[in-house]
Formats: sequence, structure tokens, C-alpha cells
Amino acid sequence: MKKFINDPADVVAEALAGLAAAHPDDLRVDVSEQYIARADAPRGGKVALVSGGGSGHEPLHGGFVGTGMLDAACPGEVFTSPVPDQILAATKAVDGGAGVVHVVKNYTGDVMNFQLAAELAADEGIAVETVLVDDDVAVENSTWTAGRRGTGATLLVEKIAGARAEEGGKLAEVAAIGREVNTASASFAYALTAGTTPAAGRPGFDLPEDEIEVGVGIHGEPGRRREKLRPARELVRSALDAILEAKPVNDGDQVIVLVNGLGGTPLLELYLVYGEVATVLAERGVRVARRLVGNYVTSLDMAGMSLTVTRVTDEMIRLWDAPVRTPGLRWGA
Amino acid sequence: MKKFINDPADVVAEALAGLAAAHPDDLRVDVSEQYIARADAPRGGKVALVSGGGSGHEPLHGGFVGTGMLDAACPGEVFTSPVPDQILAATKAVDGGAGVVHVVKNYTGDVMNFQLAAELAADEGIAVETVLVDDDVAVENSTWTAGRRGTGATLLVEKIAGARAEEGGKLAEVAAIGREVNTASASFAYALTAGTTPAAGRPGFDLPEDEIEVGVGIHGEPGRRREKLRPARELVRSALDAILEAKPVNDGDQVIVLVNGLGGTPLLELYLVYGEVATVLAERGVRVARRLVGNYVTSLDMAGMSLTVTRVTDEMIRLWDAPVRTPGLRWGA
Repeated sequence: MKKFINDPADVVAEALAGLAAAHPDDLRVDVSEQYIARADAPRGGKVALVSGGGSGHEPLHGGFVGTGMLDAACPGEVFTSPVPDQILAATKAVDGGAGVVHVVKNYTGDVMNFQLAAELAADEGIAVETVLVDDDVAVENSTWTAGRRGTGATLLVEKIAGARAEEGGKLAEVAAIGREVNTASASFAYALTAGTTPAAGRPGFDLPEDEIEVGVGIHGEPGRRREKLRPARELVRSALDAILEAKPVNDGDQVIVLVNGLGGTPLLELYLVYGEVATVLAERGVRVARRLVGNYVTSLDMAGMSLTVTRVTDEMIRLWDAPVRTPGLRWGA
Repeated sequence: MKKFINDPADVVAEALAGLAAAHPDDLRVDVSEQYIARADAPRGGKVALVSGGGSGHEPLHGGFVGTGMLDAACPGEVFTSPVPDQILAATKAVDGGAGVVHVVKNYTGDVMNFQLAAELAADEGIAVETVLVDDDVAVENSTWTAGRRGTGATLLVEKIAGARAEEGGKLAEVAAIGREVNTASASFAYALTAGTTPAAGRPGFDLPEDEIEVGVGIHGEPGRRREKLRPARELVRSALDAILEAKPVNDGDQVIVLVNGLGGTPLLELYLVYGEVATVLAERGVRVARRLVGNYVTSLDMAGMSLTVTRVTDEMIRLWDAPVRTPGLRWGA
């Protein structure tokens, strides 16, 4: 294994220290409790958003903390759920009296630990609503999941619900639009190679030189099947078939598209992929209102990419366009 | 080779088409002449900035076209210089009558082709100033270079000179501050693995499982030596030694730091690296005024990273902070 690290056991803590040093004005990092918060939290009267999950998916979630998106993020160890005490500490730190929304990707450990933290927070008088993200339509159940996995749509949920909270939305309203975004979203991913965790020191799975994993998860969980590598235009078409079968989009509907790299795929390829996506969606009469191309919900150094399509209302587009100022996503601020 | 492409010969053209589709409001892509321009170019009375170079370094340069940075970029084929006609076409397309600055990384082909294009532009009555970027202090001459290579500082030159042009700076002023930024900058890179070009289909060089290339170039050019992998804190210290030896920074000086991924290195590692950089610079009394952590000047899927340190004036910081709106770098707009 070759990585820019010191001791594999210290990677997450040291990366957190680096994130804190890199964003001294915007973020406040509690290294002992292991959470990242907006520097101006808690904001009185504002609904707070807290997310988290295993590390290794950066910029998700810590890179999405800031104005217009998350109030706090709880990074677990690499590919490991954050613990309830950590989530509780973050929830208490950013609660401004208007309640807290937990954005939780659907993995068994995450769901259990966020639920426990929500109960503990309720005991302390903090109202918590949970938005579960389960957008990955490749498989119904998976290695660490009952039901569908939460992947790329997490970014859209956090951005759109975060904007609603920033403009003064109430707890129920912020949670409701977050759930609507998840319901309107579908994702599908391909892996060309596996990512390597610092602890294991070798790729999470083996894949022959000419094969790909179709429908891979963001921890390298198996998808639908393996197959021979095909041209990008065919892979895009197959992924969009799966996405639009699971979540149909009607002629004239508007969507936001995320072409997401899983960490080791160059931007040159991601833009090429977006060109293919635009072609296929245009053929089908789907209007792409907004799109984002880059590495946002990653799996360490995995060469791979995911597509997310979210059918959006004008209200969701308005919230998508609202100013956001985070390390990983920024515009209008 | 496993990549998300169709025919290796079509990668750059198809990625350009994807870039155009992804940024319909902000960019205008001329696919036949092969350049990317601001949608609102030419802007009368504004000095225009044009850069370019081989593809494979995305988001550099096409991702830096937009308000407050470049007016146009000319992508060559992967790791291949753009041709003079292409550069001339871009120069003419964005010239607003106030002259054009060419930002050129110091590689023999780029220098020659931009020079020829500048002469052809002059024949047509367009005043061109050239800013040569040669910040990489690892080696004096290299595979495609007489003198030092141009790498990470290109981003700083384009951002700061671009801001000066946006606020109405004259041709000589924009070129002057670009040159000052280059002179004040030094960079040093490490590779853990080689990148793979679509045309070659295999890594550009072989590196044993426990070795790294010290002082690597962004096309995989050899650096100073190979050595065994060491902890990140030691690599950072060695790189900063080389950088500060070449371009001394005095106690109390202010710098902008770029921790740049070469394409295949996860953000988790880059933030860890930034933490080490912050520690070393603090020890030496250097004040980090601004910093940027991410994949900006890449080498396809190379696992590696570079550090750039630029000693900055208050004026440079003011221009760095000015609004920028490009696919690859955006704030305040």
C-alpha cells in the first residue's frame, strides 16, 4: 500500500486536524468528540442539519459543512459508522432551539447509531427528525444494508434541505423536502477498480483487468454482476435504463444530474460521461435543469463513477441555486 | 486499461462536448477549433487571458475559464501541446481590444506554439504579452523542458492575474502581476503511481510497490530520485525544504499554499498532508494567508500530490479573494 499517511490508525484524526487547519474561519472541528461544525453554530432559531458516516467518502460529509448545507458532520473511522455519543455531541453543539435534522445514509450501523443518538437527544429536549437516504437502485439489499443503499443523492438532500433550513424553514418542512428529494432520486455506479483502506492495505476486492463491477456500492459492496468493460456510451445507457426504470421520469420533467467520480477517475472521463448522459436524456425528452460533475461521494481511490438523477420541482431548483459555502461545494457566497 | 471512454482517439473531443453540455450558460466551446471560451467573450476593453496545454490535467485549464480567471483555454490532445492555429483562434475570439495575456507552462512545445500564435496575433493587430510559468523546483531541466517545469503555480497565476484583468487592469499590469506570482512561487511533487494515458493504455512508468518518484512532473517526467515510501510528515518536510531553499520565505512573510492532488489521491490524504504543511510552516514562522486543498493540476489518474508555496503581497491576497466563477474554482459569484 502506498498512501500519503503516517500511521494507518491515525488517518481520520490527522485528516480532521488538516481540515480544521485548512478552514479556520468557516469550520470548528472538535477533535476529541470527532465532529466538524460550522464556526457560527449554533444559530438561534435555525433548524440544524447533522449528517455523518464512515470516512473515505470525502468531500462527503465534512466537506459539506457550512452556510446553506450541513451544520455538523460526524466522521467515523474509514468505512465505519460514527458512534452515538459522537452524533449526540454534534447534535447538541449545533442545536439552535428549532430542532435538528439527521441525514442518514441507509447502512445498518449508521441507521442504528443515529437512531440511538436521536433518542438520547430527545431525552435532553432536542427535537430530531431523520431523513433516510436510499437512492442506489442497483440492488435491493446489500452487505451492510436492509433495503437500498444511500449514495450520491445524499449530496442533493443535504444541499436542498440545507438551503430550506438556511432561509428559515421549520423542522417538519426541512425534513419533508429532504425526504422528497430522496424519493425523487435514483443512483447507479460502476467500479473499474477497488479502493484500498489504510487499515487493510490492499484493494477491497479483486477485479480482473478487463472486468467491471456493475452496480457497486461506495464501500466496494457487490452490485448486480461483473461484466467485461464496455464503451462509456453503453455503460451510461445501461445505468440510465436502471435509474429510469426504478424512478420513471416523464417527458418534460426536469432533473438535476450528478456525475460523480468515486475517487480515482479523472475529470476528463467524468466530463466525457456527462456528454453521454446529456445525449441519452435529450433523446428521452428529459430536461436537465442543473448538473454537477466531479468527485463528491467517493470511495477512497476507487476508479469508478456513479450517476444520480433527481426529478425536481421548481422549488427544489430554487433551493439548489441558493448560496452555499462549504469546502466541497460553493457558489453564490 | 480500464477507463470510461469510447475510442481512445476521441477522448479529448468527447470530453470537450461534455464540458460544453455541463456548462451551457457559462462556457462556449468551439469543438472544431478546439477551444473553450467564456460565454460572454469578447468583453470590450477588458484584457483577455488565454492559457492551454496538453489535456489530462483537468480541471486545469478548461475548468478555469470564466469570470475572474481565464477568457479561453486551448486543450491539446492528452499530454500534447495545443497547436498555433488553435491558440490563435482562441486569442482572436476573446480579444476585446485591450490585448491578450498568454499564460504558458514552461514546456518546449507549449512555449514554441504559443510564441508562434502570439506572432500571428500581432500580425493581425492584437497585442499579446506572455507569462511563462516555471515553478517546479524539483529539477532544472526535464524531459520536455529547458529550465524548470510549470505546474501548480499556474492556478495562482491564472487566478490572480485573471482578477486583475477583471477589475480593469491594463495589459502590462495584468502580465506584470502574473509574472510576480510565478516568481514568488515554488512547487514540488511526489508520485506513488504513474498515470495511464488513453492512447498508451498502460502506466507511463513502472514504480515498485514500495517506492515513490521524488520530484515527479505532471506528465510523469522523472524527478530527483526514487526512494522508499516514507510517512507523510517526512515527505512534507522534505518537499518544503526544497521549496523554501529555492524560494526563501522570511519570518513573518505571508504565503498562499496549494496542496494539490495529481488525480488518484483521496481528499482524506490531501487534508492529512495539509495538516503536516501547516505544522511545518508554523514552526518556521510563515503565515499562511490562504490555502487550497484538492485536485486542481492533475496527471490523469496518477496517485500523487504536489505542494505549491507562493509568497504573497496584500495586493495578491486581495486579488485571490476576488470573485471567481469557473467550473473548477468558484467563490463569491
